[in-house]
Amino acid sequence: MRIRLDLAYDGSAFHGWAAQPGLRTVCGVLADALATVLRLPAAPELTVAGRTDAGVHARGQVAHLDVDPDTWARLSGRADVTPESSLVQRLSGVLPGDLVVHRATTVSPDFDARFAANSRTYVYRVHDGPAPPDPLVRGWVLWHRRPLDAAAMHAAGQPLVGRHDFLGYCRPRPGASTTRTLHRLDVTRAGEHAGEGPALVRVLVEADAFCHHQVRAIVGALLEVGSGRRAEDWPAYLLQTASRTSAAPVAPAKGLVLERVDYPSPPQWRTRQEQTRARREPAAAAGLGGVA
Amino acid sequence: MRIRLDLAYDGSAFHGWAAQPGLRTVCGVLADALATVLRLPAAPELTVAGRTDAGVHARGQVAHLDVDPDTWARLSGRADVTPESSLVQRLSGVLPGDLVVHRATTVSPDFDARFAANSRTYVYRVHDGPAPPDPLVRGWVLWHRRPLDAAAMHAAGQPLVGRHDFLGYCRPRPGASTTRTLHRLDVTRAGEHAGEGPALVRVLVEADAFCHHQVRAIVGALLEVGSGRRAEDWPAYLLQTASRTSAAPVAPAKGLVLERVDYPSPPQWRTRQEQTRARREPAAAAGLGGVA
Repeated sequence: MRIRLDLAYDGSAFHGWAAQPGLRTVCGVLADALATVLRLPAAPELTVAGRTDAGVHARGQVAHLDVDPDTWARLSGRADVTPESSLVQRLSGVLPGDLVVHRATTVSPDFDARFAANSRTYVYRVHDGPAPPDPLVRGWVLWHRRPLDAAAMHAAGQPLVGRHDFLGYCRPRPGASTTRTLHRLDVTRAGEHAGEGPALVRVLVEADAFCHHQVRAIVGALLEVGSGRRAEDWPAYLLQTASRTSAAPVAPAKGLVLERVDYPSPPQWRTRQEQTRARREPAAAAGLGGVA
Repeated sequence: MRIRLDLAYDGSAFHGWAAQPGLRTVCGVLADALATVLRLPAAPELTVAGRTDAGVHARGQVAHLDVDPDTWARLSGRADVTPESSLVQRLSGVLPGDLVVHRATTVSPDFDARFAANSRTYVYRVHDGPAPPDPLVRGWVLWHRRPLDAAAMHAAGQPLVGRHDFLGYCRPRPGASTTRTLHRLDVTRAGEHAGEGPALVRVLVEADAFCHHQVRAIVGALLEVGSGRRAEDWPAYLLQTASRTSAAPVAPAKGLVLERVDYPSPPQWRTRQEQTRARREPAAAAGLGGVA
């Protein structure tokens, strides 16, 4: 049985998603909690939509795991509680406050948190003012002391929208493509709404997928434009040069939140999975294994 | 010279506003920082709009202090930096991350952060869902595990709007009136906007002033209605009985944020101050001193 988990975390105290021996990671803490709650002999394997780096936060992260039917059936002892809601409730008793599983859903094996996703949406938040940001959001908003030109940042980002080789914005992995389709890049100055405050610049990016450091490198390049250190055509130039020699500066992790992951409707899951595997991981599609 | 300070804090690690020996309080930490930055021999006296309790947060808190002109002039060594912005900048270098002074303004002595205020606005946030709230806002949102009926809470709160004796909702101080004018009480379920998420109920209250524990007692009474434990007319009944015998339960501090304080335009400051002193603190108005 395949279970989809919708989760959120404050990345401040995690060394990113990917499990690393001796380090507190989201995958490690979550897998341990699942082993406890499901009474598994070992931590289960998890597949995730967005393998966030150390310090990056998530509101709409999605992961999946496979559970055998007996384990699943054992989860709920009461007829009026579904195994799904029992799992959410039990996890909330075991997980720390900075990691929350909002929802558990039984899905068909055609679902894959990583490969069936249509797109990921990240928001990067920057407070540009002489005083520090609102203390209530200080853990997930970058403080930029000098005022930013949000309109210039938005204009500078538009040439990045579309299908491009983002090598100039990535830390490439051997054998993996750095070509991605950026669906949307919007830089806006937030009105005064709760949780954000008036001096807040939001950079929203949506793409089919992102390569390593890509969002933070895009934001880093736009901050150079917004603060007047680089011309408006610099981000487009970095894209055309498509190398790491004139690389964009990588913005700090703290301002970045994975806000949502979108999937096609269930009948399209399998097709989408095959499509993505073939396009992004030629080795994996050929049966040689890929990075999970 | 009178200086108005606009400030914000994450109340989690503070024992409230009021200075108390040996405890970390907002007033204590701020006064010490001001003494450092202004090179004063002792911590200055501060007057505040809302003396928040331990654990209560603020986004739009206002305080004032008096500074002698020489101290003020010494603040800025450069012609292109005003003493106001120099103060904000220097404070940001001294204050901890959970306390921010957003703005400093020179005002006439007719201004009084406490007595010249027209109104205070607080928002209490409750996440009602089977899973814990979004980890990014967990420090300032209460988790209520059972679903709330926000419409019933709103209806139940409307009889409280207007001028009433709120004794049933207050911890009274000797000699002080418990009559207040509640301008507005709105209970809404927030849409999915950043920093709050979908399962969020917001209780917004605005009044000329609040007595001790009043906002949290109002929210406590509304939560009883929202969760179905009390009838919709119970909050009005508590108001009519006007005693602490059938008192409303006081909601936890963590969900409460002082969002803003409103003042009349400068020509009305003096009149408003005299009015408020006479009405709320008869002893103070008669020259016998009041609680600062």
